Amino acid sequence: MKKICILGSTGSIGTQALDVVSQHSDLFEVHTITAGNNADLLIQQARQFQPDTVVIANEDKYDYVAKQLADLPIKVYGGSQALCEVVCNQHIDIVLTAMVGFAGLPPTIEAIKSKKIIALANKETLVVAGEIICQLANEYKVPILPVDSEHSAIFQCLAGEQGNRIEKILLTASGGPFRKLTREQIAEVTPEQALRHPNWEMGAKITIDSATLMNKGFEMIEAKWLFGVKPSDIEVVVHPESIIHSAVQFSDSSVKAQLGMPDMRLPIQYAFSYPARLHLETERLDLFKLGAMHFEPARMDDFPCLRLAYEAIEKGGNMPCILNAANEVCNAAFREGKISFYGISDIIENCMHNVAFINAPTLEQLYTTDATTRTMAMERVQKS
Amino acid sequence: MKKICILGSTGSIGTQALDVVSQHSDLFEVHTITAGNNADLLIQQARQFQPDTVVIANEDKYDYVAKQLADLPIKVYGGSQALCEVVCNQHIDIVLTAMVGFAGLPPTIEAIKSKKIIALANKETLVVAGEIICQLANEYKVPILPVDSEHSAIFQCLAGEQGNRIEKILLTASGGPFRKLTREQIAEVTPEQALRHPNWEMGAKITIDSATLMNKGFEMIEAKWLFGVKPSDIEVVVHPESIIHSAVQFSDSSVKAQLGMPDMRLPIQYAFSYPARLHLETERLDLFKLGAMHFEPARMDDFPCLRLAYEAIEKGGNMPCILNAANEVCNAAFREGKISFYGISDIIENCMHNVAFINAPTLEQLYTTDATTRTMAMERVQKS
Repeated sequence: MKKICILGSTGSIGTQALDVVSQHSDLFEVHTITAGNNADLLIQQARQFQPDTVVIANEDKYDYVAKQLADLPIKVYGGSQALCEVVCNQHIDIVLTAMVGFAGLPPTIEAIKSKKIIALANKETLVVAGEIICQLANEYKVPILPVDSEHSAIFQCLAGEQGNRIEKILLTASGGPFRKLTREQIAEVTPEQALRHPNWEMGAKITIDSATLMNKGFEMIEAKWLFGVKPSDIEVVVHPESIIHSAVQFSDSSVKAQLGMPDMRLPIQYAFSYPARLHLETERLDLFKLGAMHFEPARMDDFPCLRLAYEAIEKGGNMPCILNAANEVCNAAFREGKISFYGISDIIENCMHNVAFINAPTLEQLYTTDATTRTMAMERVQKS
Repeated sequence: MKKICILGSTGSIGTQALDVVSQHSDLFEVHTITAGNNADLLIQQARQFQPDTVVIANEDKYDYVAKQLADLPIKVYGGSQALCEVVCNQHIDIVLTAMVGFAGLPPTIEAIKSKKIIALANKETLVVAGEIICQLANEYKVPILPVDSEHSAIFQCLAGEQGNRIEKILLTASGGPFRKLTREQIAEVTPEQALRHPNWEMGAKITIDSATLMNKGFEMIEAKWLFGVKPSDIEVVVHPESIIHSAVQFSDSSVKAQLGMPDMRLPIQYAFSYPARLHLETERLDLFKLGAMHFEPARMDDFPCLRLAYEAIEKGGNMPCILNAANEVCNAAFREGKISFYGISDIIENCMHNVAFINAPTLEQLYTTDATTRTMAMERVQKS
């Protein structure tokens, strides 16, 4: 029985992870669930799964959650510091990091130090602190199993390929809802349009990142760290059907790809069951119904966030942290109607030029970079 | 240094295998080469690769080959019985079975008994005697590594998946040169049209089998034996671009596929280097240049050879042997202009109904079935 801690259990990944656990309750058990703000869903999940521990990161909601669960033998904590403590519980085998944004970093670090298997769904962790995280994981001999569909695809393609050189990673992208628009049309898009993603149902923040291709940029950075390749060896392939979830090309020219209908429960379950596979009740790929798959290059000039991501990881240091912090601010500002679509990349690029560059930042310096960048980005948002 | 015996070195697979060996002469060495009839190319290859042993199966050409190689310290043998002896040489590590047709069976059996790694390019071996071969390989703990591009693709997708159940094999097919013709048009096709295969350069026999889809039927039977799946779990997917070389669907819905530009040196090299991969100087897959991949079901009614292959393996026993023997005769008869395209499947089906069925044939009974079927098929050819 693997005991699982889900950081961010009320989000899209978190709820699907709980579904995976329900389908294999003979193999998996929920030990800890945590949420940022969604107290009611957290309470409902706690009643259903009877975990050992529950954390509500928003301290204002602690009393409410504690009171609602008072009749059950569940430990309830409040505040984000509690996240860093609960992940260390000796009974936990796997920590699924499924919270959104930079907040995922500190508990992930603590989980690695406690030698938990990391099922990584929080991409900002590697985007911001890839070098530090990879060094830590290496030091503590902790496997980091990707939960993103793209990275899980790559990880699945690498099974049995130990020691074989990766020549290229083909990172597929749906292209987002604006793939077919002209640059002029893109300049005018609204948050409502951006939130209608064609293939995947996700949270609002990631959906916007998907429309700007920043999400793909983050995934490229994440892939660099997870699989030890150069950014220039990662090629973004726009594949509107989202059936090939990514692929790996080896030195003998052979390309291995992982395909399927879009269902995030597959990468979640694979991270939980790896290296075994378990039955998953979901729609099977039907190539005849599909008929065709298409491929085209990413329009880096018209979706500058992807270009900025390549520039940030090539530069290294705290630059991806700047990229991420500025993006979090701009993503929210766009959703709130404060800036335009291209306002996002303009402000991010401006922050990348103006926040002080640090070549080999400590974690402390990354926190400072994050705070400084957010302040700067918010100023730029106000002025625009 | 792996020492390699190439049965059928002058054919399409054989010459490409020698190319692979030349590119990695630090890892591979040619120990033995054999040919059926092409004495001149065999002599040329022997001069270039300086193997320990050379066999010309056509005994009439033995004196010529022996004389031409008299100045070299190469052992030269003649006759097909010699094939069964040379594969047992203690210095040989890998036997590549690249001869065409039923003749590949006896030396393959001897190679297994001598515990050689089998790089299997002769599909008739498994089509005719899959049960016997698999039992033998199991008994002698000999790996059978597939060299067909489709089976190599499946084998590559199965790396690292030990113990994970195969839900379905997606066996891709180019569809052959007559994919878009109506049934009426197919009835009129000539050998010349059939020999123009769109994607792969192969020998004439296999090219015709590719046009009738019998080649795909054989591959389906081969896949059943190699990967231990039911025929009904193998789905033929017509994919005209021939970029996905086949795929495997697992019980969690995940599909892994192997892709690349068509180049038989990849599966040959992978069988030689497995589980490692070596650099291969060949064209890389360019998804942007490709643009799209298409998929459609196989037209089993209009290409009855594929249906007959499913029927033969479902029936089992000596039925696939009947299928293969009748096909060898009809394939040649079609090339010689003696029968029409649908004459091939008509005569095969007739033989399947009329040759005596044996449920669990011995090897001896398979030889008898083969001979009986050939005689019957030839009679049918004469009468048509």
